[in-house]
Amino acid sequence: MRWINFSVDGGPSAYGILDTDDRIHEVHGTIFEPGERSGAVHRLADVKIEVPFIPRTFYAAGLNYVKHIREYAELTGQPVSEPKQADIGYRAVNALIAHDEAIVIPPGATQVEYEGELVVVIGKKAKHLSEAEALSCVLGYTIGNDVSERLWQASDRTFWRSKNADTFKPMGPWIETEFNIDAAETTVRLNGNVQTHFRTADMLFDIRTFISRMTQCLTLFPGDVIWMGTDGKSPKLKAGDVVEVEISGLGRLRNHLVN
Amino acid sequence: MRWINFSVDGGPSAYGILDTDDRIHEVHGTIFEPGERSGAVHRLADVKIEVPFIPRTFYAAGLNYVKHIREYAELTGQPVSEPKQADIGYRAVNALIAHDEAIVIPPGATQVEYEGELVVVIGKKAKHLSEAEALSCVLGYTIGNDVSERLWQASDRTFWRSKNADTFKPMGPWIETEFNIDAAETTVRLNGNVQTHFRTADMLFDIRTFISRMTQCLTLFPGDVIWMGTDGKSPKLKAGDVVEVEISGLGRLRNHLVN
Repeated sequence: MRWINFSVDGGPSAYGILDTDDRIHEVHGTIFEPGERSGAVHRLADVKIEVPFIPRTFYAAGLNYVKHIREYAELTGQPVSEPKQADIGYRAVNALIAHDEAIVIPPGATQVEYEGELVVVIGKKAKHLSEAEALSCVLGYTIGNDVSERLWQASDRTFWRSKNADTFKPMGPWIETEFNIDAAETTVRLNGNVQTHFRTADMLFDIRTFISRMTQCLTLFPGDVIWMGTDGKSPKLKAGDVVEVEISGLGRLRNHLVN
Repeated sequence: MRWINFSVDGGPSAYGILDTDDRIHEVHGTIFEPGERSGAVHRLADVKIEVPFIPRTFYAAGLNYVKHIREYAELTGQPVSEPKQADIGYRAVNALIAHDEAIVIPPGATQVEYEGELVVVIGKKAKHLSEAEALSCVLGYTIGNDVSERLWQASDRTFWRSKNADTFKPMGPWIETEFNIDAAETTVRLNGNVQTHFRTADMLFDIRTFISRMTQCLTLFPGDVIWMGTDGKSPKLKAGDVVEVEISGLGRLRNHLVN
């Protein structure tokens, strides 16, 4: 099932269930506490897709695919060093934008790149989950683009502007509750051309490993998200470029760049 | 004026204004969108103090006082390196607890320490503020204890458990809207004895510097908080210890430790 957050003609946003005929069946309440269907039905083409929700805590795996780790080592001039354990990091909600909204290249940014990522959406409060139990707290999955400015990433003490500048975190277009990660492939297109392609499951530490380890020390809450990292390398992006992150079984997240 | 979030007899939390006679005048709405006074008045001694609010984004300056930077260098075995610019970091809301709630030492934690910090509460949406304008978005100030497990801090790739384990972020007891940082002193007591004392204003980068720099790349929102860092060194804490972080003009945040 696909949950979508949308608005019509600049009105307030609402949630709905997207069917296979691209119709949205509006539902009262939120994704995390859904109510009854309102009876309203919209065509997907007639609505503005909104950010699915503002996460409570925005977790990110960071370095979690081997090829990307090698490229990060090149960037920083450090020896290749794979993380030895699943230590989760953070991103910030100010940076979120929806499908089809613009990624704004900030003044001074010179090396902006994409990172296509699988996003795990937490639906239930959870602590002390085993790996076998880990997925029991997951509501669904969506797509993220962990846009990054590589020179700031190398020069700054934190990721505050390299990864969390306003508009640097496209997320969406919707949340899919049924997803087979073992079959999934991530494909990133730049201006229509396939640029990056990898098996989504080829993570160094998988979703179960992260959730189990995290919940030994922290409580996950409905509305938390975990971005699972990316593989491969992005070219330098410029104003006018269109980036599409597709994950098979989930959909396609598209955003364009402006100055 | 002091804003307090409180509950009575396990009921729902409410906001109120704390007067100088320790009476709470209940107010409808939230700190960020206050309504009328409800007419209800409670004695401070009769209520449970709650976490002031769940921040939207939980910013933290990290290394921002010189003595503490030297001690951090000792911990990690690195040369002393003062941050060259005000790069803000992040903490996580799962870890928040209120005044008088227990800091739980997680299994495996062996070197738990306190960090008494000034907390800036953002009240208005803000972007592109100059240093002169920076404080215009500030609603008030409170106190934080950035509890840290030093061995995990040194060993892990991120701060996910060293600083964000559940209960590691006491915040409160209330929000003070009138505060003179230049006169303020931070005093940390362990089991009633003064252990750490510093001028709160002795930051490497001050509040105006951080807010102005941050808002060049990101939007601050009502409900964001910025923890401003700490000075000095904490002894190793153990179950049964009571830590009190006092900032003159703000109040005193007290928490005890349990296993």
